[in-house]
Amino acid sequence: MTTLKQILGTELPLIQAPMAGIQGSAMAIAVSNAGGLGSLPCAMLSPDAMRSELAAIRAGTGKSYNVNFFCHTPPEPSAEREATWRAALAPYYAEFGIDAAGIPTGPGRNPFSAEVANLLAEFRPPVVSFHFGLPSEALLAQVRSWGSKVLASATTVEEAVWLEAHGADAVIAQGLEAGGHRGHFLSHDLTKQLGTFALLPQVVRAVKLPVIAAGGIADANGVAAAIALGAAGVQIGTAYMLTPEATTSAIHRAALKSEAARHTALTNLFTGRPARGIVNRVMRELGPIGSAAPEFPLATSGIAPLRAKAEAQGSGDFSPLWSGQNATGCREVSSAEVTQALAEGFPASL
Amino acid sequence: MTTLKQILGTELPLIQAPMAGIQGSAMAIAVSNAGGLGSLPCAMLSPDAMRSELAAIRAGTGKSYNVNFFCHTPPEPSAEREATWRAALAPYYAEFGIDAAGIPTGPGRNPFSAEVANLLAEFRPPVVSFHFGLPSEALLAQVRSWGSKVLASATTVEEAVWLEAHGADAVIAQGLEAGGHRGHFLSHDLTKQLGTFALLPQVVRAVKLPVIAAGGIADANGVAAAIALGAAGVQIGTAYMLTPEATTSAIHRAALKSEAARHTALTNLFTGRPARGIVNRVMRELGPIGSAAPEFPLATSGIAPLRAKAEAQGSGDFSPLWSGQNATGCREVSSAEVTQALAEGFPASL
Repeated sequence: MTTLKQILGTELPLIQAPMAGIQGSAMAIAVSNAGGLGSLPCAMLSPDAMRSELAAIRAGTGKSYNVNFFCHTPPEPSAEREATWRAALAPYYAEFGIDAAGIPTGPGRNPFSAEVANLLAEFRPPVVSFHFGLPSEALLAQVRSWGSKVLASATTVEEAVWLEAHGADAVIAQGLEAGGHRGHFLSHDLTKQLGTFALLPQVVRAVKLPVIAAGGIADANGVAAAIALGAAGVQIGTAYMLTPEATTSAIHRAALKSEAARHTALTNLFTGRPARGIVNRVMRELGPIGSAAPEFPLATSGIAPLRAKAEAQGSGDFSPLWSGQNATGCREVSSAEVTQALAEGFPASL
Repeated sequence: MTTLKQILGTELPLIQAPMAGIQGSAMAIAVSNAGGLGSLPCAMLSPDAMRSELAAIRAGTGKSYNVNFFCHTPPEPSAEREATWRAALAPYYAEFGIDAAGIPTGPGRNPFSAEVANLLAEFRPPVVSFHFGLPSEALLAQVRSWGSKVLASATTVEEAVWLEAHGADAVIAQGLEAGGHRGHFLSHDLTKQLGTFALLPQVVRAVKLPVIAAGGIADANGVAAAIALGAAGVQIGTAYMLTPEATTSAIHRAALKSEAARHTALTNLFTGRPARGIVNRVMRELGPIGSAAPEFPLATSGIAPLRAKAEAQGSGDFSPLWSGQNATGCREVSSAEVTQALAEGFPASL
């Protein structure tokens, strides 16, 4: 059987979780050079930015790396849902003196597409990972034609089995503790989402593919625990968020270092899909899961100007303060040092 | 420092989780005789039944054992809330031909009290564990005066710190994966509940007391993972539910063995407090968390006749099918064998 390290092309079976808006090529390069698999989140990048980031990675490391995409089906924009959303946000627009008529609508995040695949063909990245399922068979075949290995997130046993049947090379078991967007794609019923302790061993039992544990892993002990539960490797995000290579905002860094980080929740207010972040004012007042938010990713544009205004005043009240449930691993050290410290958790046999 | 095994008085740092309605003295005796800490759940026992069960344990084992109590403050019954609850259930009463006027009201579960403490004084149990916080200082002092060690559940870091400050000898970190009632007592905000992977290491960091991991642990690998995350021991319930010593109903056993066990949710419909069970008809139709259910434990009496009627027809549609998120450890073997298999997960040093 192919080992996870062979699939990833790395010294360590450790993936730095792609975190859109939190990091770019610098972190990916640092982690890959430290022996892990650095990841470039592409969901929020324009084609030009993506090309420039990929070029930076190729220049910065000769090691394996991962590029990550969302693969949702863009929803039909609905004027009615957008109006409901704007109405829910109207008191805040008034508070900040924002002219609601001037706020553009738009997706904010784009799914993997033929255009992106063609751009990626120039780079033939060693690993491509997907969130929210997998792209179409034709697009996936194109990705595989370059020799790229394919990873994708499963949040239930059913999703893991589905990914195995549809061509993934390894499955990321994303436990409920994980920060950022939940990767569910077969059911939107959040009660089906499982904690890492329950999800991981059940996925390991259900599929033959190597399983990568994600969610709540903050340090070497967490890595060792994930391996004990049958994981072939780990994917870790939150622990990297205070590194100098992260582009985490000052407001977000302060929240991660504070007691506030003890309380996160899943919220759909920032994008339209449930994602885990530190509880802040807008989550307390409108949610955290609110019915007014339109479908992913259409909630993004309505809330964006509030975030901008609040952040300009030094406030994270309207910012997505993504974090997993265990921020105790966050340290202000280099991404290489975070990687090396986490690697202590692997048994010698891995 | 006192080790957890010294506190528990056992060979193994393993507690069989008390499961009211699922087991009595027989399981407690079997687990204690196998080297773990058997537990007797007392929340639903009359004083006579409690005395008889405690006598049975004393006759059945010379080993240490645990008695478990809820310590909620009984709510003021509200005629209005009861009427709302009965109205929500009315279509089901009609479906089953139940005369709603004949359904008694009443608590169903009693908190630890002076009466119970006086009864317990005759037995001086080696360990007493509490759910929903701790009893009053006076009652706790009485328990400690017999030399009983005191355990209690924490679902957040704040609760663990509180329990340490209020006289617990060890803390049970109850992760969100756990079956049955959530033990929260400082906040009722369910978004504060953490998965075991996130809760356990944060509690270990925050208190000096030994920490017992609970939630999602199904087998020896789970035990090893909990120890890797810093637990001094484990508390396990679901894995014992198919043993011959369990009084789990045939309907409940069938659900645990089926695919249905893959989907659990927290629900307040059976007692008024959130508890994890396998999703069934009433949870799908009224909840799983419904605002009509009165405060714990007052929801119990309204739903009880529906459960009885449905179960008489072989249906678990109205039964609390308690289960954790990981039922893969359930096996139809003796409680002693479950205990021995779990014990394989402890490192030799424990």
